[in-house]
Amino acid sequence: MEFNDIINKMAADNIQTALFFKNENIAYLSGFHPSSFSMVIFNEDPVLLASKMDLEEAKKFSKIPVEEFNSFKDVKETLKKEGIKTLGIENTISLGICKQFRGDWKIVANDILVPFRMIKSSEEIKKIQKAIKISEKSIKSLRLQGKEWEVAAQLNYNMRANGSQKEAFDTIVASGTRSSLPHAESSSNYISNPSVIDWGARWEGYCSDCTRTNVETEKQEEIRNIILEAKKAGIKSIAPGVKASDVDKVVRQVIVDYGYGDNYIHSTGHSIGLEVHEEPSLSVKNESKLEKNMVVTVEPGIYIEGHFGVRIEDMVLVKNKAKILTNLPGDFNFE
Amino acid sequence: MEFNDIINKMAADNIQTALFFKNENIAYLSGFHPSSFSMVIFNEDPVLLASKMDLEEAKKFSKIPVEEFNSFKDVKETLKKEGIKTLGIENTISLGICKQFRGDWKIVANDILVPFRMIKSSEEIKKIQKAIKISEKSIKSLRLQGKEWEVAAQLNYNMRANGSQKEAFDTIVASGTRSSLPHAESSSNYISNPSVIDWGARWEGYCSDCTRTNVETEKQEEIRNIILEAKKAGIKSIAPGVKASDVDKVVRQVIVDYGYGDNYIHSTGHSIGLEVHEEPSLSVKNESKLEKNMVVTVEPGIYIEGHFGVRIEDMVLVKNKAKILTNLPGDFNFE
Repeated sequence: MEFNDIINKMAADNIQTALFFKNENIAYLSGFHPSSFSMVIFNEDPVLLASKMDLEEAKKFSKIPVEEFNSFKDVKETLKKEGIKTLGIENTISLGICKQFRGDWKIVANDILVPFRMIKSSEEIKKIQKAIKISEKSIKSLRLQGKEWEVAAQLNYNMRANGSQKEAFDTIVASGTRSSLPHAESSSNYISNPSVIDWGARWEGYCSDCTRTNVETEKQEEIRNIILEAKKAGIKSIAPGVKASDVDKVVRQVIVDYGYGDNYIHSTGHSIGLEVHEEPSLSVKNESKLEKNMVVTVEPGIYIEGHFGVRIEDMVLVKNKAKILTNLPGDFNFE
Repeated sequence: MEFNDIINKMAADNIQTALFFKNENIAYLSGFHPSSFSMVIFNEDPVLLASKMDLEEAKKFSKIPVEEFNSFKDVKETLKKEGIKTLGIENTISLGICKQFRGDWKIVANDILVPFRMIKSSEEIKKIQKAIKISEKSIKSLRLQGKEWEVAAQLNYNMRANGSQKEAFDTIVASGTRSSLPHAESSSNYISNPSVIDWGARWEGYCSDCTRTNVETEKQEEIRNIILEAKKAGIKSIAPGVKASDVDKVVRQVIVDYGYGDNYIHSTGHSIGLEVHEEPSLSVKNESKLEKNMVVTVEPGIYIEGHFGVRIEDMVLVKNKAKILTNLPGDFNFE
């Protein structure tokens, strides 16, 4: 991504200046990850406004000039002084902040950075690969003993010890009947089988996201084999120009064919980068076409309420076909 | 809080139905903490719409009826069928979601629940006290050794082992010159003095938030004594009817009098409950008046860039005067 490309896109949308408030957008533009309220005023002379608390660090790490954020009043005066009439603003911004600018400017709500952030540069891909490497090294030394939350704490500890800034999201360790909850918090139950572990590391802001499920019984293994077949079919279907929804369809069809369609209660995957969940998602409704250098997850699951669940998740880089970034075998069983 | 009080307030603002998307508002109304997209349609027949993934748990824990969220289209049709013309919506909601409803309804952006959530019930206060108890028990067995992040991981582990769901926010362990960064991430530096530890537990969704600073040199102790004096003055100034900004002024004045005004680079405190940072904040600009049964933090700090920082934070319940909820001595030194 070059700043000029963003400015050209803004010009095409008649946006003179864009305001960015979302931390990951600020990090994308400046290289600095804010710890409290910050914003970027973006045009040919971009500036990061950081809170007094962040100022010392922001000045050290930001690639664009840094000033202190004082008040919206000051920001508005600056924008007026510069003769700005049209402001680009993020769709993710809160109504409360949007109100600050409504009335005095023509506001174009437009996720300007999304199309740029969707396509990963080789530098970004390297950071994602490093996050994956850390997460895989960390799972290999994990011992499946104690309570679910203890296993999660141990995995988080391993990731940090192996260089991750922190976990990319709340690590999920869900075992026994709780494995049927796709977003289960790790509980105080002693770990049992099957055990779903969904975990990710973070390297220079970039996330990894992977899931493996330990199985024990024949029935559990049978379900896992269906999931592995669905995942394989989904990954095979990935190529530039393919609709995101079509990957979901391919995966879902395999699960439907085995009679578990009603037990596949979430989407097939999502893009990933500075955020764990980015656009486009691989969901039944998403008509976006895949493009080269997108990075997406493929994560089918079957959840049998009251019994158990199995999910397997890999990360994939879109090239002429899919390049699988994760390295653990799909039937990896933890120690 | 009684649902009737909320409905009466909505009626006074001509709001027929309110939509809540913020997780903590959903938890406040339903008792269920969503793990993925959810919303509450609130009127005399409130309903929680949960994602398919959350459905099993939502049905188990929600105090209000639960249905599956399908699409905004379905929600809009329901609202139209019910003859709703005016919708209340949160100021914190994203522009993207707001757009879904704009046009077809008169939208009143109004943080309806804020005045209710500000005043804690005796049940909520008990939950906050339990979170404090867990956090204090957890710090007492903490050993200050290893890297900053290892100390943080140990503290998080202790809190979880003592019953916290998870930490209330990213635990801050910032030592040596890094103590001058109020929001420092815990680093890979070996811990040294002074060491600022800012940590909180969570019990049934409710947060604690406390900070202590280990000091070593005479200069560090001198600064900590100023902070303790400022904190004491601030807490003494707290009473129903007092302006939030006046508490900040009292605290700031003590620090200014000692010549460190420029080194006090954040607000004096914030309300706390289901969220770590709630309204009103104790900041120079906040003109809200304190009321009985608010719970706030008082957390002065002095940050000398390149040298070190000291912050001490307590939690206070507003009664006829301030009742301090935290129990650790302000000059508590870790082992």
